[in-house]
Amino acid sequence: MKEIEGGVTAPRGFKASGISCGIKKKDKNDLALIYSEVTARAAAVFTTNQVKAAPLKVSAKHLMNGKAQAIVINSGCANAATGKRGLENAEEMARITAKKLGIEQEDVLIASTGTIGTFLPVDKIAKGIKEAKGKLNREGSGDAAQAIMTTDTFPKEVAIELKIDGKEVIIGGMAKGAGMISPHLAPHTPTGQATMLSFITTDAVISGELLKKALKSSINKSFNMITVDGEESTNDMVVILANGLAGNKEIDKEDEDFNKFSSGLNEVTLKLAKMIVQDGEGATKFIEIEVKNAQELEEAKRIAFSIANSPLVKTAIFGEDVNWGRIMAAVGNCGVKIEEDKIDIYIGNLKLASEGYGVSFSEEEAKKILQEKEIKITVDLNLGEENARVWTCDLTQEYIKINVHYRT
Amino acid sequence: MKEIEGGVTAPRGFKASGISCGIKKKDKNDLALIYSEVTARAAAVFTTNQVKAAPLKVSAKHLMNGKAQAIVINSGCANAATGKRGLENAEEMARITAKKLGIEQEDVLIASTGTIGTFLPVDKIAKGIKEAKGKLNREGSGDAAQAIMTTDTFPKEVAIELKIDGKEVIIGGMAKGAGMISPHLAPHTPTGQATMLSFITTDAVISGELLKKALKSSINKSFNMITVDGEESTNDMVVILANGLAGNKEIDKEDEDFNKFSSGLNEVTLKLAKMIVQDGEGATKFIEIEVKNAQELEEAKRIAFSIANSPLVKTAIFGEDVNWGRIMAAVGNCGVKIEEDKIDIYIGNLKLASEGYGVSFSEEEAKKILQEKEIKITVDLNLGEENARVWTCDLTQEYIKINVHYRT
Repeated sequence: MKEIEGGVTAPRGFKASGISCGIKKKDKNDLALIYSEVTARAAAVFTTNQVKAAPLKVSAKHLMNGKAQAIVINSGCANAATGKRGLENAEEMARITAKKLGIEQEDVLIASTGTIGTFLPVDKIAKGIKEAKGKLNREGSGDAAQAIMTTDTFPKEVAIELKIDGKEVIIGGMAKGAGMISPHLAPHTPTGQATMLSFITTDAVISGELLKKALKSSINKSFNMITVDGEESTNDMVVILANGLAGNKEIDKEDEDFNKFSSGLNEVTLKLAKMIVQDGEGATKFIEIEVKNAQELEEAKRIAFSIANSPLVKTAIFGEDVNWGRIMAAVGNCGVKIEEDKIDIYIGNLKLASEGYGVSFSEEEAKKILQEKEIKITVDLNLGEENARVWTCDLTQEYIKINVHYRT
Repeated sequence: MKEIEGGVTAPRGFKASGISCGIKKKDKNDLALIYSEVTARAAAVFTTNQVKAAPLKVSAKHLMNGKAQAIVINSGCANAATGKRGLENAEEMARITAKKLGIEQEDVLIASTGTIGTFLPVDKIAKGIKEAKGKLNREGSGDAAQAIMTTDTFPKEVAIELKIDGKEVIIGGMAKGAGMISPHLAPHTPTGQATMLSFITTDAVISGELLKKALKSSINKSFNMITVDGEESTNDMVVILANGLAGNKEIDKEDEDFNKFSSGLNEVTLKLAKMIVQDGEGATKFIEIEVKNAQELEEAKRIAFSIANSPLVKTAIFGEDVNWGRIMAAVGNCGVKIEEDKIDIYIGNLKLASEGYGVSFSEEEAKKILQEKEIKITVDLNLGEENARVWTCDLTQEYIKINVHYRT
């Protein structure tokens, strides 16, 4: 497996474009189109938020046949909490795209991100789709990745190449994040249907069933293990299109080829998930939290998320303050039964607490670790054998600033 | 029922004091003592955080006999995550207090608040207890209320007077809050054992059993319904002492007298709880969230807390931005089954969303409502008949600033 350039247009047969159609102010790009020359097998996962945006409902319906050929995405308006009119607008967005591309309406998937509760400007989007179609090209992934950004500060793309059945198979992906990021709320969605806004393309030949299986599994190890602010969006969604142009023997059982494909997909989704955290709203630190030796995997996850979503832990790390007591409080406050006098806490390789209470450590060394851009927190529960890793970022004044006037 | 001056020393027979013993920097008061001239019946509730501070464990043990005569509280050090040494220190704090006051060690309750993971400076506390004992007086409630403050900007006190059995009965209370405030995490503690740092005194004659019952009930309507930052502390605790000096006929069944007492206690705890929210770290707005017509009370509470703990809702209110879509997202993301197209959302009396999507409203009127210091958000689920109210505050840059370097 090796990393290559090209994002979602790296796999054979995929084109993309990103343009500005006037939803966002200041001529920022706000409409992206991804297109496969041939119909692709498709799978997707959606947010478990009970309030689901219209584009998710329409895309879910269009996915009933297990295939798709295009994805159209707008930023600047979430088309969520928009009732019947929102659904009609979402369907219209698919219809216009299908017509321009000369494909079936059911083969168009749609996604939206931006302010919740406002209606899509359909006229602008119609013009935008026309322009985006005209600009579709084999190097368009960068423009598309940029057009789906909201408060993101950089576009998020990755592509990898691997050998399956002697053939070169490529998987590409893009994602957007920044705020309202917590696609997996452990206590409520333990089976992990919750998702993120990400689009993945591949030229692999793989059965629809295994494509779904690989996607779900990779999501649970990546997007479902990140949080920026503990907020699960109404619009979270991950789609994968597999157009089969690599020409490998169809992956139709859980054999070595499937494992290779899954590893590649895991690589793509994990890289994108980590980029989202790196670019979390206002973030200055990338934080990995590992909870070790829990009795149950779900318990390890819940504790890791409790730490990751603790504003007090996050502000302490922003301040480079080795306040491990806040980590301890977060371990205790998520309803998981623990034994306080068995808990060890580390920052980097430095042990801060042993058997539940503080050990003497070098403040200087702690400071040095905390001054890094990437921080690793380890909590060893010493109770069982299950481990979980969660990625998050710090909480800063900039997060507040970004979100105080997002709508206006 | 009428409100009177005097806080915890308003009821007959109670004295208090607050002094500086050097735990905090800059000679700030950091040790409070509350003392009843006679032994009082006592009840308490503690945090449900699995990591419980040493003073809570010691106080729980001392409460086994259902009585107490003094409470000693320090700020500046939580004595949490301190292992065996922490327990010994807490017991020593009680022993010294008992000796100075000439009472039983088991009749001393203790509480601590401050940094987690550091050991109590027992020598300083010993000297402090001596001084605090010397300063005990019938007007000492203000000093005591100030000495338990951490990041609080004002001391929190209340007292009320009511007639029971023809006698004047007084209930007084004090509390501290500011940050790490979320004494009730609905999904994990639905029966509501979680608590806050608050001390309540009364001269009522009431059985131990009914004192417990009244306390638990009032907590569930007050401290368990507030959140500042969603963080449940290791040290949350509420204690009530009833010394019987009012001379009323003992309240020993759930009759009219009990109801009167309970109403008075509810008034005291609710006033204190609201003060904690008003003084939330960095807060500029006091927010009441009412979720109406849920199918289950627990569901109404869970949704109200999901909104109250949403950083995006809280920052929008700080910015006086009428971003009701974030409220909608928070309603949907807490795992409670709702029907999106039945939801109405109001700010003040202004309807923002009806049947799940936005209605046209006067931006000017919305702005006017949001410019107030107190904001009311109402979410009507239109599903059942259960209502819940939760109180919180906005999230501001100042919260981050306060917590970035709290330890150092």
